[in-house]
Amino acid sequence: MQPDALYRGVPAGSRRRARNNRLVGPGRLHALIDGVFAIAVTLLVLDLPALPGSAHFVHRFVEGWPSYAAYVVSFATIALIWIEHHGMMSAVRFVNRRFLERTLIFLLFVSIIPWPTALAAEHIRQGGAAARAAALLYAATMMLMGLSMAFSWRYLAEHEQLLAEPARPAMPAGARRALMGSLAYLPAIVFALLVPPLSFAIDAAIALYFALSKNELPGVMYEAGLKDGSV
Amino acid sequence: MQPDALYRGVPAGSRRRARNNRLVGPGRLHALIDGVFAIAVTLLVLDLPALPGSAHFVHRFVEGWPSYAAYVVSFATIALIWIEHHGMMSAVRFVNRRFLERTLIFLLFVSIIPWPTALAAEHIRQGGAAARAAALLYAATMMLMGLSMAFSWRYLAEHEQLLAEPARPAMPAGARRALMGSLAYLPAIVFALLVPPLSFAIDAAIALYFALSKNELPGVMYEAGLKDGSV
Amino acid sequence: MQPDALYRGVPAGSRRRARNNRLVGPGRLHALIDGVFAIAVTLLVLDLPALPGSAHFVHRFVEGWPSYAAYVVSFATIALIWIEHHGMMSAVRFVNRRFLERTLIFLLFVSIIPWPTALAAEHIRQGGAAARAAALLYAATMMLMGLSMAFSWRYLAEHEQLLAEPARPAMPAGARRALMGSLAYLPAIVFALLVPPLSFAIDAAIALYFALSKNELPGVMYEAGLKDGSV
Amino acid sequence: MQPDALYRGVPAGSRRRARNNRLVGPGRLHALIDGVFAIAVTLLVLDLPALPGSAHFVHRFVEGWPSYAAYVVSFATIALIWIEHHGMMSAVRFVNRRFLERTLIFLLFVSIIPWPTALAAEHIRQGGAAARAAALLYAATMMLMGLSMAFSWRYLAEHEQLLAEPARPAMPAGARRALMGSLAYLPAIVFALLVPPLSFAIDAAIALYFALSKNELPGVMYEAGLKDGSV
Repeated sequence: MQPDALYRGVPAGSRRRARNNRLVGPGRLHALIDGVFAIAVTLLVLDLPALPGSAHFVHRFVEGWPSYAAYVVSFATIALIWIEHHGMMSAVRFVNRRFLERTLIFLLFVSIIPWPTALAAEHIRQGGAAARAAALLYAATMMLMGLSMAFSWRYLAEHEQLLAEPARPAMPAGARRALMGSLAYLPAIVFALLVPPLSFAIDAAIALYFALSKNELPGVMYEAGLKDGSV
Repeated sequence: MQPDALYRGVPAGSRRRARNNRLVGPGRLHALIDGVFAIAVTLLVLDLPALPGSAHFVHRFVEGWPSYAAYVVSFATIALIWIEHHGMMSAVRFVNRRFLERTLIFLLFVSIIPWPTALAAEHIRQGGAAARAAALLYAATMMLMGLSMAFSWRYLAEHEQLLAEPARPAMPAGARRALMGSLAYLPAIVFALLVPPLSFAIDAAIALYFALSKNELPGVMYEAGLKDGSV
Repeated sequence: MQPDALYRGVPAGSRRRARNNRLVGPGRLHALIDGVFAIAVTLLVLDLPALPGSAHFVHRFVEGWPSYAAYVVSFATIALIWIEHHGMMSAVRFVNRRFLERTLIFLLFVSIIPWPTALAAEHIRQGGAAARAAALLYAATMMLMGLSMAFSWRYLAEHEQLLAEPARPAMPAGARRALMGSLAYLPAIVFALLVPPLSFAIDAAIALYFALSKNELPGVMYEAGLKDGSV
Repeated sequence: MQPDALYRGVPAGSRRRARNNRLVGPGRLHALIDGVFAIAVTLLVLDLPALPGSAHFVHRFVEGWPSYAAYVVSFATIALIWIEHHGMMSAVRFVNRRFLERTLIFLLFVSIIPWPTALAAEHIRQGGAAARAAALLYAATMMLMGLSMAFSWRYLAEHEQLLAEPARPAMPAGARRALMGSLAYLPAIVFALLVPPLSFAIDAAIALYFALSKNELPGVMYEAGLKDGSV
């Protein structure tokens, strides 16, 4: 592709800014993102209980339910975030250094999720300060992951030359959806300090909401990608 | 590719439904699937015994045989499921949000396999409730993995616009094969409660059956992909 | 690509056999291979010593040398095997179910390497049966990895329709090189039972030999891939 | 692509040398690099503290700050090195065996980073020989990673047939930038032996410098890739 093809339909002013803001295709970034998600989701298995000893196996297996619940909620949250982020990325044609940096900040919060998941599984039943702190840490991590994704959406909304043209009008809605999804963790943060189990229930409900979501946005991004001929 | 090219040969009614059901290419999903399989298969190594101490090394090495057997059976099962799933995916041209979700449910069961594998290796020899529970958990995980794959086949059979045309007639047979493969774990579940070692033998036999399988189905999918010109 | 293009220049008899032997492009297999190698090579870090406690840190750090040596030899061996296998794969145009299976057997031996590496690091200095068994296990794993790669080369030599045409004459040499590389571990297996440190020295020497190798073979494969227009 | 297309615009002498130096596309190497980076960055999470027990959870959580600081600095350093290396690679059109080997040496230092990170987190607060040794090991690993990257830049500067033409004049500047970035760890090495916390502060400052860097070089590489039509 000729570099000038990049700037088709972009006004001369932003064209000059775009040139100063060197671009490259997103293929390598896709690979890094998919690698980090695949590993984050698979490392969760390391925190399932080892259940040594034979005598009380079944009893201890049943007692491990907070680990299984935390596993499922974290897996589902990471999976749904991957789907949402994949929708956003399917409209991205070019990336620059600043966008790579924003994406890596997002990946920091994705890759750290096994840690609050393990703490939540360990402390949820014990109550007291530990349960409160674990619930707070879990909800705060999820909120920061969502905010860092909103930060990427926003950057794209402000740097349209990175996007397939048909997707450009949908970017503010995308940034808004990511921001709303993040702020949904605010009640989980508040209840973490009051009723930790309720805080985890809110985390699970947010995942369920996104699983059932009929929002058109990812589809709009997909279609923009197909229209542009580059997916 | 023009988005209309998607709907070539699809009747107007399902074409309208297809449009409401926005699509994107499967490249990113391939990368996530391959990442999760690569990690699941490689994490199995973390549960091979550490064999500390020098005095009884050889004795303890030999005693570790349940770990080695569980490693080989789980590795082979994951590898063969990857081959079957790769066959299915080689006919998939487009994905939508619902198919991504179904695939991620499948990946949940793939990525959890190192856990029942470790429990099986730990408890198979001790007999009693622990061996029964470990055998049950192992066979149930494998069956759920198979069922979630059958669930993907079925979704594709009902959403033909996602597929290379030459593969469409073969989809019901694919869904059936995946369902049969899953139900083959039912005897392993029953025997888990009666004779745990026999349950594991059935798990191994199912892997062996798929390794020796001369079923034409993956090949049909491959050829459909080649005919369609997109693999 | 038309499926008939596959069979250009293949005699009618083997063309019929090729048709019965359905084919697909190697892209997904590349991704799985690269994922397994990336993880196997990175999991080695988990066996470097934790060095808890402050008082004798430097002393214990120095005492950890078998871990560092095992890390470097295993990393180098996996890296060089990746380069050799990458050379082979750069001439592969299509894969079938049987070739996928052979490759997954190869990946089993690649992904297991962190285990004998950890055992070698733990037991090399203690001498006695443990050092002998660890040296034996290490050299045997490496030999089996090499043999399973030779098994893939051989399959390709016998199924030329999977290959870029210019690479076909070079396949027997490739199978031979892989077989010779594997058999080089035979002395390491013998010395494992006599003088374990010498066995590890042979393992390291084999890696060094391949690092310094000026063998033309990977290059021949690369060029075959370029000539065929598909790399 | 015809193999002769490789040598367009290359004088006959270096064309002959290039032929002896067989080449292949960089796709598989990209996949291996992205896999290793994704795993190295995600394995860091395994060293965050487990915080067992409930009584002093908050106190112990706060006490874990060196782990969090080490996590963030290592994550940021790996992320920024990925961005720099991605810039370099976006101008690479072909690779040969020697370049693969140099890249794998670089990946050895990338994949080992979780180890000095864990040691740094463990020992930074205890002072004494352990803190000095951990700070030394951390800074030395980072410097070796940077030097091995400079080694790759230098190889490319001397083997221009591997590069997109428009990037060739920028290679010496790239090698210089990588070398300077590595040598910036020299003061961290010196202070490791005197004031370990200051050594870690220098490590963090180097990451911050690269995060804020407005250097044009990655952009020049991106543009070279686009101009050449192959990114």
